[in-house]
Parts: sequence; C-alpha cells; structure tokens
Amino acid sequence: MQFASDNAGPAHPQVLAAMSAANEGYASPYGADAVTARVTARLREIFEAPEASVHLVATGTAANALALATLAQPWQAIFCTPVAHIHEDECNAPEFYSGGAKLALVGEGDRMTPEALHAAIAAEESRGVHGPQRGPVSITQATERGGVYDTDQIAALGAVARDFGLKMHLDGARFANALVALNASPAEMTWKAGVDAVSFGASKNGCPGVEAVIFFDPEVAWEFELRRKRGGHLFSKYRYLAAQLEGYLADGLWLESARRANAACARLAEGLRALPGVSFLQEPRANMLFPRMPRAMHRRLMEAGAQYYLWEGALEGDDPEEPLTARLVCDWSIPDAEIDRFVEIARG
Amino acid sequence: MQFASDNAGPAHPQVLAAMSAANEGYASPYGADAVTARVTARLREIFEAPEASVHLVATGTAANALALATLAQPWQAIFCTPVAHIHEDECNAPEFYSGGAKLALVGEGDRMTPEALHAAIAAEESRGVHGPQRGPVSITQATERGGVYDTDQIAALGAVARDFGLKMHLDGARFANALVALNASPAEMTWKAGVDAVSFGASKNGCPGVEAVIFFDPEVAWEFELRRKRGGHLFSKYRYLAAQLEGYLADGLWLESARRANAACARLAEGLRALPGVSFLQEPRANMLFPRMPRAMHRRLMEAGAQYYLWEGALEGDDPEEPLTARLVCDWSIPDAEIDRFVEIARG
Amino acid sequence: MQFASDNAGPAHPQVLAAMSAANEGYASPYGADAVTARVTARLREIFEAPEASVHLVATGTAANALALATLAQPWQAIFCTPVAHIHEDECNAPEFYSGGAKLALVGEGDRMTPEALHAAIAAEESRGVHGPQRGPVSITQATERGGVYDTDQIAALGAVARDFGLKMHLDGARFANALVALNASPAEMTWKAGVDAVSFGASKNGCPGVEAVIFFDPEVAWEFELRRKRGGHLFSKYRYLAAQLEGYLADGLWLESARRANAACARLAEGLRALPGVSFLQEPRANMLFPRMPRAMHRRLMEAGAQYYLWEGALEGDDPEEPLTARLVCDWSIPDAEIDRFVEIARG
Amino acid sequence: MQFASDNAGPAHPQVLAAMSAANEGYASPYGADAVTARVTARLREIFEAPEASVHLVATGTAANALALATLAQPWQAIFCTPVAHIHEDECNAPEFYSGGAKLALVGEGDRMTPEALHAAIAAEESRGVHGPQRGPVSITQATERGGVYDTDQIAALGAVARDFGLKMHLDGARFANALVALNASPAEMTWKAGVDAVSFGASKNGCPGVEAVIFFDPEVAWEFELRRKRGGHLFSKYRYLAAQLEGYLADGLWLESARRANAACARLAEGLRALPGVSFLQEPRANMLFPRMPRAMHRRLMEAGAQYYLWEGALEGDDPEEPLTARLVCDWSIPDAEIDRFVEIARG
Repeated sequence: MQFASDNAGPAHPQVLAAMSAANEGYASPYGADAVTARVTARLREIFEAPEASVHLVATGTAANALALATLAQPWQAIFCTPVAHIHEDECNAPEFYSGGAKLALVGEGDRMTPEALHAAIAAEESRGVHGPQRGPVSITQATERGGVYDTDQIAALGAVARDFGLKMHLDGARFANALVALNASPAEMTWKAGVDAVSFGASKNGCPGVEAVIFFDPEVAWEFELRRKRGGHLFSKYRYLAAQLEGYLADGLWLESARRANAACARLAEGLRALPGVSFLQEPRANMLFPRMPRAMHRRLMEAGAQYYLWEGALEGDDPEEPLTARLVCDWSIPDAEIDRFVEIARG
Repeated sequence: MQFASDNAGPAHPQVLAAMSAANEGYASPYGADAVTARVTARLREIFEAPEASVHLVATGTAANALALATLAQPWQAIFCTPVAHIHEDECNAPEFYSGGAKLALVGEGDRMTPEALHAAIAAEESRGVHGPQRGPVSITQATERGGVYDTDQIAALGAVARDFGLKMHLDGARFANALVALNASPAEMTWKAGVDAVSFGASKNGCPGVEAVIFFDPEVAWEFELRRKRGGHLFSKYRYLAAQLEGYLADGLWLESARRANAACARLAEGLRALPGVSFLQEPRANMLFPRMPRAMHRRLMEAGAQYYLWEGALEGDDPEEPLTARLVCDWSIPDAEIDRFVEIARG
Repeated sequence: MQFASDNAGPAHPQVLAAMSAANEGYASPYGADAVTARVTARLREIFEAPEASVHLVATGTAANALALATLAQPWQAIFCTPVAHIHEDECNAPEFYSGGAKLALVGEGDRMTPEALHAAIAAEESRGVHGPQRGPVSITQATERGGVYDTDQIAALGAVARDFGLKMHLDGARFANALVALNASPAEMTWKAGVDAVSFGASKNGCPGVEAVIFFDPEVAWEFELRRKRGGHLFSKYRYLAAQLEGYLADGLWLESARRANAACARLAEGLRALPGVSFLQEPRANMLFPRMPRAMHRRLMEAGAQYYLWEGALEGDDPEEPLTARLVCDWSIPDAEIDRFVEIARG
Repeated sequence: MQFASDNAGPAHPQVLAAMSAANEGYASPYGADAVTARVTARLREIFEAPEASVHLVATGTAANALALATLAQPWQAIFCTPVAHIHEDECNAPEFYSGGAKLALVGEGDRMTPEALHAAIAAEESRGVHGPQRGPVSITQATERGGVYDTDQIAALGAVARDFGLKMHLDGARFANALVALNASPAEMTWKAGVDAVSFGASKNGCPGVEAVIFFDPEVAWEFELRRKRGGHLFSKYRYLAAQLEGYLADGLWLESARRANAACARLAEGLRALPGVSFLQEPRANMLFPRMPRAMHRRLMEAGAQYYLWEGALEGDDPEEPLTARLVCDWSIPDAEIDRFVEIARG
C-alpha cells in the first residue's frame, strides 16, 4: 500500500522498451541524435507550437530552476505560492541557479488568485533600486496539494503577468494529471493561457527520470543550453533521455497513465469519504488526496504497512479521534485492490 | 567508423538488463532503496574503503563540479592542467558550483608534475587577503589526451597537496580505462595515493548516464547531499541510477569493457603507426589516440564517413602532406573490423 | 523640513575633523594603520568584548550581507521579519552574498516574538535534504518601523536561536538610537542577549559612510576578511573609514547624537499627537515616527515643502479626511524650529 | 621613504576641503544630490561623452568587478593579462560578481598584443556549448608593472574585440598617470580607441576612496545600478563620494597630482639608473618602477626604513650581488628629498 509518492512507482515497461530500442550502435551525443529529433518534433506537435524550443533534463528541480533562471534576473523576485515546490522542496535551487533571486510568496494556499498576484506584484514597485525588481511568475499544475487550475484561471494569471510585462512559468511535474482532469489541450493549458515556459514532467508518471523544458519563444534557447551545460545537466548520451519521452508519448501512454492515476485517486477518495470522521482538504482532481482522518485510523493503517506522509499532526498523541491530515499519492501503477485494502483497513 | 567519442557508443546490454530488473514494484525514492544500498556496499568493497560516502549523479560535469565545490571555498584557486575537462569543457560549471572559485593552471600538458604543482601552489602565497587562496588539486585519470598517471606519480602529487594542507580530487571519467592500463587496484590509484574525492565515471564505458562521487572521508557527505539537491542532481527514482552501476560492476563488466576499449585503441595505434607520415602526440595507454596524420589521409577518412575530431589544423588547406592532429576515441563496443577498415582507408 | 531619511543629513563636524586629522603623511593601507588599531580597541572596550573581531565597511547593506553570508550556508534559510531591511531594501544583497540563501519571514510586523521565531524555525525541519536548512536569525534594532526590542526580548529570541543551534545577527543601522532609548549597555543589547554578530551603524547618525561588523567569536574573522575583499569592500585607504568612527565615538558623540535625534522625534510626536485625526502606528522610541494623518494635512505639508515618504495610501484621492500613514525620520541635526514648523503646518 | 603603494599616501587637502564644503544641511541620498549632478556633468565633459553613464563606488575592486559583471555573462571568459589586478589581487571578485565567469589569460606580460588577444579569443571558439563562451576584454592602464599602452595600441586591441563582437573594459586605477604620460585626451585613451567601460580611479591619486565607473553606451546603466545596490556599493550619503571627485577634478588637480607622481618616479629611476648593478624590468612611464637591485642594496634600504615590496627574490640569501626585483610606487605626495635619500642609501 504505497501512497507516499508517485516517484516510488516503477517506470512503465513501454518506456524501458523504448530505451532498449534506442540502444543500437552509435548515436551523436548531446542531443544531436535521431530520437531527440523525433521527440522534439512530437512535443511541438502536441503543444501545437512548431517554433518551441525543447530541452531535456533528468529531474524536475533542474527543469524548474533552469527555466526560472533563464526568465529571471538575480535582482528580481519570482512570484509563487507559499507551498510551491520551488519554494519548499528544492533546497534553494532556484536561488542558486538564478544567482540569488528572491521567491516572493503570493496568497495562502496552493493556487494563487489574479487579485493576490496583482497585489504581490504591485507591492514590489515603489522602492526603486532598493527593493527586489519584479520578475517572472511561477505556478504549479497540478498543484502541490492536489488542486488543478482551470484554463481560464491560468489565463487570468497570465493576463496579470502580461500587464506588468512579466513572464510566466508552469511547473508541470504532474502536467498530464492536470491535463486529463481538465480535458484540455496542452496548448490551452499553456501558451494560449499566457504561459511562456513549461517544465513538462514525466518522471512521476512512468519514466525513470526525464523532464522537458519548453519555451514557446525560442529566443532564449541558446541561453538555456549554456545554463544547462554549466549546471551539469546536459547528458552526453542524450538519446536515453529522449527515448524515455518517446516511449512515454507513444500511443497516448502518458495520458492513459495519468487517467489511471487520477482514477485511482478518485476511487480512494470515494472509499474514504464514506468513513466517519474523514474530510478532505480539498476535492481531489488529480492524483493526490489530503484526507483528514482520526488518529486511530492512521495507526491502523501504518501498523498494516501503509506508506504515506502525515502532513499535519503527529501519530503520537492521546486523542484517537483527533483528525490528522495525510498526503496520499496514487501513481499510474497502483492496483485497485491496494486501494480497496487501504479503505478496508481505514474502516477498521 | 565512429571514433568521435566514447559517449557516442551504446550502453552495454547487461546494464540495461539491470535497469529492467530494478523496475519491479515500489521502491523508496532518493536513494533509500535496496539497489542503492547494494551498489554503495559494492563500491566500498571495490575501493577497500568501508567508510567512504558514495553519491550518484547522472553526468560527469555534475560529479566534478559538485565534488570540487564541496572541497573548495569560493575565494580559492583550484589547481588543474590547462587541458583539464573542468577547465575546457564544462562551460564554467566548477566556477558556478563553487560560487566563483578560480581555476589555476598548472604546467603545459595533460599531466602535471609535482614540481609544477608545487610551484603553482607556492605562487599563490604572498598576497594575503588580496589573491585567491589555495584550494584543492584536481587531476584527470586517464587524462584528456589519452595519458595515464602511474600510481606513484599520483602519490607524488598527493604528497605536494598534503604538504600545503590541500585536498586532491581525481576526475575519473575514464577511471576504468586507466585502472586496467596500470593493472592497479582502485585503492592504489586513489586514497592510497592521497586522493580525497573521486568522480568515478561509468557513462563513457557502457552506461546510459551515471557517475559516482566518492569521498574517502565521509565528513563532507551531508554537505554534498545538500549541494546535489540544490543543484537539481538528486534523482527521485534513484534506483535507475543505482541499477546502471549494479549492472556495470557485476561480473567485472566494467573492467572487461575498459580492457576492450583500450585494446581497440592499441590495435588502432599499431595499424596507424605503420603508415608513412603518422606520429603520435604521446603513446596511448588508455582508449584515446592523438595521431598526427597528413591532411590527405584525413580527407580520405572523412570522405569515407569516419567520424572523429580534428584537434589541431584544418581540413581545408593546400598542403596534402601537412600533418594535422586528430583525436580518436575507442569505446567498448567498437568492432575490430571498423578499426581495420579505418587503417585501410588511412593507408590509401 | 527634511524628514525623509536620516541619511539625508550632514556628517557631524567632529567626524570630518577626525578625517582631516588622519590625513597626515603615509599610513599602511588595508587596515594596518594606527587609527584602525585605536578604533578596534575602542569598540572592544565599548562592547566589553576584548576578543571581538572588528571589520569596517562603508555601507549598511555591505555590513549586513557580509555578516549574514559569513553566518549562513547557501542552502539555508535566514530568519527575519517581513519588513526587515535585508528583505525589503537591499535588492537581494543577502541572497547574492550568501550564494543563494533564502530569507524566511517570521511573523507580521517589525518585531518578531520568540513564539513566532520558534514556529518558523520548527517549520523548516521535516523535509530532510529537500527543504532549505535552518540558518541564522537576523533582527533589526531599532526596527524599520521605529520600534525597539527590550534587552530581555532580544535575549528571548537569542535563546530560541541557541536552542536550535543557530546564530543571531543584529542589524544595528540605528544601534545608537536603540541603545539610548533602552538606557542599556552595548554588551547587554548584544552578546549578553545572545547576539553573535552586529552591524554597528554609524552612517545614519553623523558619519559620511562607515559601519562596523563585529563578531563576538573571532573564529570567523578570516573568512569575513576574505568575503569582504572578494566583495570589493576592503578599503585601501582604510584610515578614512577608521577615522570616521574615531570621531564618532569620541567624547560620547555617538550617544549624544542619538539622544538628539530621538528627542527630536519625541518632540515631533508630541506635537502631532495633539492634532485631530492623528494616530501612530506605534509609539516611537527611537528616531522614526509613523503617523496616520488626514490626506488634507499631508497636502498642506507637502505644498509647504516638507520632505518625507508616504508609507501607505496616496496623496491623490478624494477624501480629505482619509488617514494616510507617513514615515518621518529625525536625524541628529534637525533643529527644533523645523519640527515646530512642521507641526504648525500640519495643524493648518 | 614610503614606496610600497600609492594607497599609503594621504588625500590631497583640496579633496578633503571639497568634502567639508559638501557637508552643509540636507541633501537627497543615493546620488540625487547637487554635487553628484555636477560631477557627472564634469566627467562627461572631460570624456567628451555627453551620454555616458557615470556611477561612483568607493573601491577599485568594486569598480572593476561591477563593470565586468555588467559586460559579461557567467558562462563567458573575460580576457586579461596574467598580471591583471582583476586576476591576481581581487580575491576572485570578478568571478563572484559575474556569477562564475572565467578569466582567460592573454600573453605573458603586463600588456597584451593584438595578436595574442586574437589568438586567445579565437581559441575559445570550437567547443560549442562545452567551453566557456567569449566575453569582454579587460586591460589595465597604466599597467600593474608600470607600463602604459599607447592610444594606438589600445585601439588595436579594441579592433580585435570589436571584430569578435566583444566589449572592452579599461581598469584605470592609475588612469591619470597614464593620461599625462601619453599626453592624450581621456576620449582618445578610451572610447575613441574602442573602450566601452572605464574604471576611473581616483583613490590612488589623492582621494580617500572613490572611483567612477563610466559606460559610454548608457544602455546598461540601470543594470549597473541594480548590481551596485545588490553588491552593497550604493552609498546612502552619496554626496561624500561625489565631493571627493569634485575636489579631485577641480582646477586640474587630478592631472597635476599625476604629473607629480610620474615625475617623482622618473627622478627615482634616474637616480637608480646611475648605480652599478641596477636595471629595470621596463622603462617606467607612469609612477611605478620595477628595478632589479643587488641584495646588499635592498638590505641597506630596508635597514634604513625604506618601505616597498620585493617582487621577486628573497632578502634572506647568501649572494649580496644577486639582483632582486623591487616594486617602487611614487604617490603624488612624495617629496624629492625622500627620493634622493632613497637613492643615496641605495648607492651605499
């Protein structure tokens, strides 16, 4: 019963098969190979963006930090939510790669509103050379709390950024999960809504380790290439990054895997919803659920070997009825039987 | 006829098989999995260093830059040769990761002598707070020009470093190629000779992309972990890095592959040596050869589709007899027939 | 009627005289001169800290950023209030000098409580290598909103920091103003209360441009020296920095100037308090006042040439009675007549 | 007998008088004062560059590092000589401010030739994303070894830089000394010869501590302002920086002081030239002399209290006739009697 993270799951066999298929003879290194050319073309097609620049790296932190460093100056503020992965879980990687930019926190939760974004940007206006300057906006889709922005919500944020002449980045570590939740097209969820750069995640949804950074304006492509090399993120045997994505994108595997993960999460939510004392931080739309469950319920689950993080509260405590918040993540590979077993044990 | 780089070659099937074998069910992310535990133990055994800290990353530049940043302060000089990969081919990654340390160049060629190293370190002594301070020494084994330090040569450099209280790093992008050339043990080539940190390369010798950073004094392990995370080099699905190394180290594959590559290079050298007008920058001991060959010979080869870099001189030019230096690299997978064909075409 | 900032005021003649007195013949550069030796001894005496290391720089931003970079690692969080000068008014200098540390904001106002500090530090605890690590605490005394911590309040914050093994820095841009407000000794306001490093400001209180960074544990002195040089903040003709401080500290000038500035501010507060529609953000204890005054009052003042910043609200607006917050700063040189005139015009 | 450095000398009384004159009443901080406006206009006039942007800082290292960081990208190489102050004496400040750019060394001595510069730039051309990219050129005038580029030599270097699309910076720590040696105009020595940015030194020639950074293309002015603030180099009481320069530039003081220093150096050279066993590293043209003198001569001088640096060789040694190189620097204030006394003692 593994609900700790979608990065604990295996890679999809189709992805590994694509890596094996790419493992024939010589191939030019550093992205000058045929697989990379095909994957680049495929991503441009998927995003309806024939001019987009596409760059592969192995981790989400690298994708985010390099993309933001390309969009930001060291003396600027990057606007994000207080729970953004770039703020909470990257050990200051954005600060490092940007040369010391500041992350300015917008609002309270996992999704920023246009009003809160406008207020935060406007607040960085009146101190001339003294304060940090206004820099790019970064949003996460699906969010770190299992939420999803609707495309018009993204567009509203994009409009605010554009009003101030700022760029917008989308951290898509769970891009596919959000996409299938919205039933939108990649273009609608990104550049048509004002997004300039995307971290297109694949590692959490069935790849060993690959993310694509996509810029819809390819003007910054060369700078990104230099930043990537300087960061040690340019693979020499690049074909093995590209092959992962080729397998991932083939025959709609990426969408199907996201649908399975989201459906698993919905099944889990339905099961838990029926139990007394259980409520949710917010209705899940992607593959993460934050249920508040009584302490006694957590104890039963953990004793039975369920793996997940307590988000708030502590297992040690006297009151068996006190609700503690968990984070439950469903990856593409979780069997229904595991979900049902989890719910059974929770029921007690 | 692919002699451009050992990173153009395929991964060894045994390595991919190990990745597939690791692709079963859930595994704790970020290195807390069973494969990683086994690989760490195996590397400690190979290096006869039970306390060593072992950290995996995907690229050689990451390994070198993170290791050096851990050993150096931003106001220090890192001592290396003028042809060091860290100086010439990493787009200022060591400067970036170290926060602005300076690379101080020692000597003229690909191998530094103890005398040149001593002189270079001593020269950074008399300007108090004004000049860069003395920092770590970094050597490359096998070197960027196909040379190999003998273990006593490494020990002599290590002694100089130690006399000044400095640490020593070994860039082992081609560690195995040097090791089999010397018929030495990993311990003899590293910590017994005064090496504090190793970039243990595997990507060029049959893996898709993995390098191990090894510190013989584990005191810096936690700092390295933080630097790695901050650099975006901590893989979430870490098992796929570890599995590469597990396949690579199993049954002596890493040594066998290096022996094959070195033998291929020796065969190539023997073939070319017999041709009129051919001489070598230095006698090859590992898997790289730098032959000076007449321009006409290069033209024949390139027209026949041979792939390699001209290191000095330009193919365009009038004198067909003028010798131009090439860099020829043999990877583990190059067939003898390709080598022989290359020599045949060179012969004309 | 200049109330915009204490850095708009002139230097005290006694300070300039000390610079002239130091301008005789040759003196060893970079701090190896006699004036520097005397000033260092004097500051150690004032702080009752015979082992303290003392370093002079010309600006408060340099003092703060260099001190914090010496105390923090790049992957750490520095804890400060949301209105801290280091956060709002240094254009990311702490991030730059620290190599990318993050500023973690504590509480809501200009003074943090021990409870808020404890909570903020505790919150950075549970994400292992992923989140920023805990770093130093920085407080401002007197605060950016005219407040002053009592010494026991500082001690309570120091105790929290110490409990977590963290260092504490005090931004004393207005050190003297706070000191005379508390009627405390420098030692009581700093190391006796758990402060490890002080930015001892002098520029705002009568010097052309000099601040001392003081570490009570001199172990970091050499690192600071290297950071200062690398930052371009080591003066060659250091005696002119030292001479400013010598003049400033002689005959209690620094305390007398601070008393005058504080008294001017108190006089201003008394005058404004009596006017209808005026209230204060908080009771002033040092030399800054944040009065809320009706828009019409502001208009009269500005038309009469009064210089100060509107802190909240906009002069343009319809309602003459709407209260807008101003920031009024009194420097050591402001004549009583100017204050009285300001109040008169405010009265209307 | 102080010949150790021109930063050991006093400030000129006219400069201190200008500071006192500026010390009247209130003045807008951060460079928005009247003195700054006048000095900016004066420098534009002196340089015949009405559009130039002018920025004041307190140290030469700050001027150089900030100017170069504005011209360079972190992944570039900055071309300078191996004895450049920015390379040898700034504790990696250019690397720090640029975010990790590399200093690429051109030629062997204190003046680069166009041929050597061309070769060095051309060498950074063929490794695509792997090697450092080409960045700005930095020359020092007068040089760190007492040499002076003729204006046509600067123009030839500027032409090389321009051919590669690169910018050129001039470290003018001893700008005035070079200018009077050449009998050229500031425009001829800078922008007419292809210089884009100048560190215009004044501290070594009679000011307590001020340097101007001048960009002839003001497009980068705002970026420089942000970099300066972020580096902690923006003075709040800016008028005291500006006043120094106002005093320095008034009535040709800066040129007269430089002429005196150069003449003192020439007198010293003439005196030493006549002594047996004395030769010069190069003929002095500005205010620094590098004589090779027998060890016994050095011993006599040092015993008599002469202050200067031995540049090569060690005072301790057996052979009294062995020539050791000294660095002798004459500042504007050195009396002829001191020079003559130095020569007398050297004569023995």
